[in-house]
Amino acid sequence: MSSGKLKVVIVGAGFGGIALAKSLGGSKNFSVTLIDRRNYHLFQPLLYQVAMAGLSAPDIAVPIRGLFSRYSNIETMMDEVVEVDGKNKTIKLSQGGTLEYDRLVLACGAKHSYFGKEKWEELGPGLKTLEQAVEIRRRVLDAFEKAETTNDLQLKKKYLTFIVVGGGPTGVELAGALGEISRYTLSRDFRSIDPSRARVILVEAGPRVLASFHPDLSRKAVRALESLGVQVWSDSLVSEIDSHGVKVGDEFIESSTVLWAARVKASSLNQQLNEDIDPQGRVLVNPDLSLKSDSNIFVIGDQAHFKGEKGALPGVAPVANQQGRFLAKVLQADYQGKVRPEFVYFDKGQMATIGRKMAVLEFGPIRLSGFVAWLAWLFVHIYFLIGFKNRLFVFLQWLWHYFTYSRGARILMNRNWRSYN
Amino acid sequence: MSSGKLKVVIVGAGFGGIALAKSLGGSKNFSVTLIDRRNYHLFQPLLYQVAMAGLSAPDIAVPIRGLFSRYSNIETMMDEVVEVDGKNKTIKLSQGGTLEYDRLVLACGAKHSYFGKEKWEELGPGLKTLEQAVEIRRRVLDAFEKAETTNDLQLKKKYLTFIVVGGGPTGVELAGALGEISRYTLSRDFRSIDPSRARVILVEAGPRVLASFHPDLSRKAVRALESLGVQVWSDSLVSEIDSHGVKVGDEFIESSTVLWAARVKASSLNQQLNEDIDPQGRVLVNPDLSLKSDSNIFVIGDQAHFKGEKGALPGVAPVANQQGRFLAKVLQADYQGKVRPEFVYFDKGQMATIGRKMAVLEFGPIRLSGFVAWLAWLFVHIYFLIGFKNRLFVFLQWLWHYFTYSRGARILMNRNWRSYN
Repeated sequence: MSSGKLKVVIVGAGFGGIALAKSLGGSKNFSVTLIDRRNYHLFQPLLYQVAMAGLSAPDIAVPIRGLFSRYSNIETMMDEVVEVDGKNKTIKLSQGGTLEYDRLVLACGAKHSYFGKEKWEELGPGLKTLEQAVEIRRRVLDAFEKAETTNDLQLKKKYLTFIVVGGGPTGVELAGALGEISRYTLSRDFRSIDPSRARVILVEAGPRVLASFHPDLSRKAVRALESLGVQVWSDSLVSEIDSHGVKVGDEFIESSTVLWAARVKASSLNQQLNEDIDPQGRVLVNPDLSLKSDSNIFVIGDQAHFKGEKGALPGVAPVANQQGRFLAKVLQADYQGKVRPEFVYFDKGQMATIGRKMAVLEFGPIRLSGFVAWLAWLFVHIYFLIGFKNRLFVFLQWLWHYFTYSRGARILMNRNWRSYN
Repeated sequence: MSSGKLKVVIVGAGFGGIALAKSLGGSKNFSVTLIDRRNYHLFQPLLYQVAMAGLSAPDIAVPIRGLFSRYSNIETMMDEVVEVDGKNKTIKLSQGGTLEYDRLVLACGAKHSYFGKEKWEELGPGLKTLEQAVEIRRRVLDAFEKAETTNDLQLKKKYLTFIVVGGGPTGVELAGALGEISRYTLSRDFRSIDPSRARVILVEAGPRVLASFHPDLSRKAVRALESLGVQVWSDSLVSEIDSHGVKVGDEFIESSTVLWAARVKASSLNQQLNEDIDPQGRVLVNPDLSLKSDSNIFVIGDQAHFKGEKGALPGVAPVANQQGRFLAKVLQADYQGKVRPEFVYFDKGQMATIGRKMAVLEFGPIRLSGFVAWLAWLFVHIYFLIGFKNRLFVFLQWLWHYFTYSRGARILMNRNWRSYN
């Protein structure tokens, strides 16, 4: 094994894949191929800012090639894996190519799940990709424009009703930003409607929003949302979505804009692996993050179910990040013929933001909320935003719209690029 | 007429429409309705920077409502005019509404023209809208990615051949940026191709590029383009475009990326006006910019043919800008029952940029080229970029990628927003 280089193929350039590739960059023991169907790494924790017109799409995305251009042992491919053949140690790519590997790392993440009701996607887009974020922005801005134009009062009301399904951090962040936009950003921009009378409803199936946080913080988040005019409906199950609105329990709420932040499902590549899979589609992995049936294949990040002290680790960036960096050590051990280490997660806590000066933050026994938590949130997010350019510009834009309440990316682009008229 | 407010309807929020609306903002003599099918004003002179991944779409677009929110006499509508009824002084809107006016100003601009070969649009997009810019960016980045992936050498060559049709300022700017991207920005990012061997061809039907400039400056522009590896083919007529490439005269050049910067045509609204129209579809207007047949309707900017000293005024921002501001004086005269003034164009000269430190500039007898002209170009464009936020951020980004050769918006987004996998 140590006769030549170890050929490592990484699938997915999310937090996990990038962390691993960076750790292997410049090493003469490994030749690395990083595959992603995108040409960029996406800073997903700020995706809701793109959807809410606070940031431009390129602000939170970094070209993958640019990240690794100085490492000659890392090759980047824009392609998609369609088949994993563990026996022959090859993967098949969607453009027809085949790649051999010594070690395969799957870090493909997750996408939104609609509990089998896939037709809901068109009606209530999720927030996992830049395209979805831009589409959500388009729908939100379009709803205000349409409300302004129509003379039909019932229709006006429908356009001014926004429903966010799912009370996790993403749902809370979206609902908070919607409240803020309607109350501050757009307040003086329209003549026939009062945007601050927009109705924003956050629907959560469970007993409280931000369920992974301490109940005190959930309560504070609800108060903060309410002060932005958001109605928080907990214990409320969405039973139907159609083009007119959403059915919550027995009540039908007319709404032209539904956003889905309810549930994710791991990459469907997992179905091919012949491994145990949890209800969210994640593969159960060994302590060294390898598959039970194939020690040459690893799964990390949102795609993996790793049993921590308190159950499966959550699908958040720090988990993927730490697993990616840890895997570099496993691969070094393999290369040197040593025993593999076991992964231990260092819990850095969790945070969520509500509007532009409130956040909740939890780290072990420490619980914070309010402006200080928001500053901490801001610092952490800007600090970890990969790529110096993005960090600087995002920070400046933030400062800017913190003081002005403006949102620079309030641009309603069409889906179709062709000219008309 | 001076009993109440004069009802002014402005169609189009380009340079002309915005300039006029700003001049009327806050006046108690006028109630103004500004209609555009977009929710933003677009700074078109920098559109090529979005197409070439130097700037994000929102960097060069400003929400129209935000520009006028403080003027209570200005109402903004996102809609499209489908019919002008001069007799009844009304216009019909695409969403079914009807609007009355005392004075109607058409400032709808122009779009690309394919000499009747409209199917060329899909094959060679023009550059007039943000959507087109983002589509061009997608195609250019995609071509490099595909060239890297394929093993077919002929195909690699096709992917690395870029053809820009039309040697006006837009074509020159696009070709120069393509040369720069392939030679500098991407030079170290790929493993199986050498981006600097990309072939960029600028095809111009006439005897020289930048034909509106002095021949010396055309020559300098050609030298600058060639130093960036761009081949400039003048006296070359494109006779066919298909999915394999472009036929120039008798020669067929294989290319996967064709960009169209050849010709524009004024808004098709002009066809309804029963007025004299020039070959580019522009309406011939009176010295006060009104129609010959209807003194309550004005046409300005790219949509109008105004006879200046040296023939029709060109379709550039300063013309539209000056006409918009001039029209405010005409409307004031109408309100006060005075004689209308006549429009006189103050020629501020012209400029075009080639790559990141070369431009050509002409102002009366003054002709400049090189770095100083580029600085002047930069200054003028940033200065006129409407909205303080955009100006500041664009300037910072420019500084940044001037020194690093990076292009922050190198993000390849899909056309479809739905998730896959």
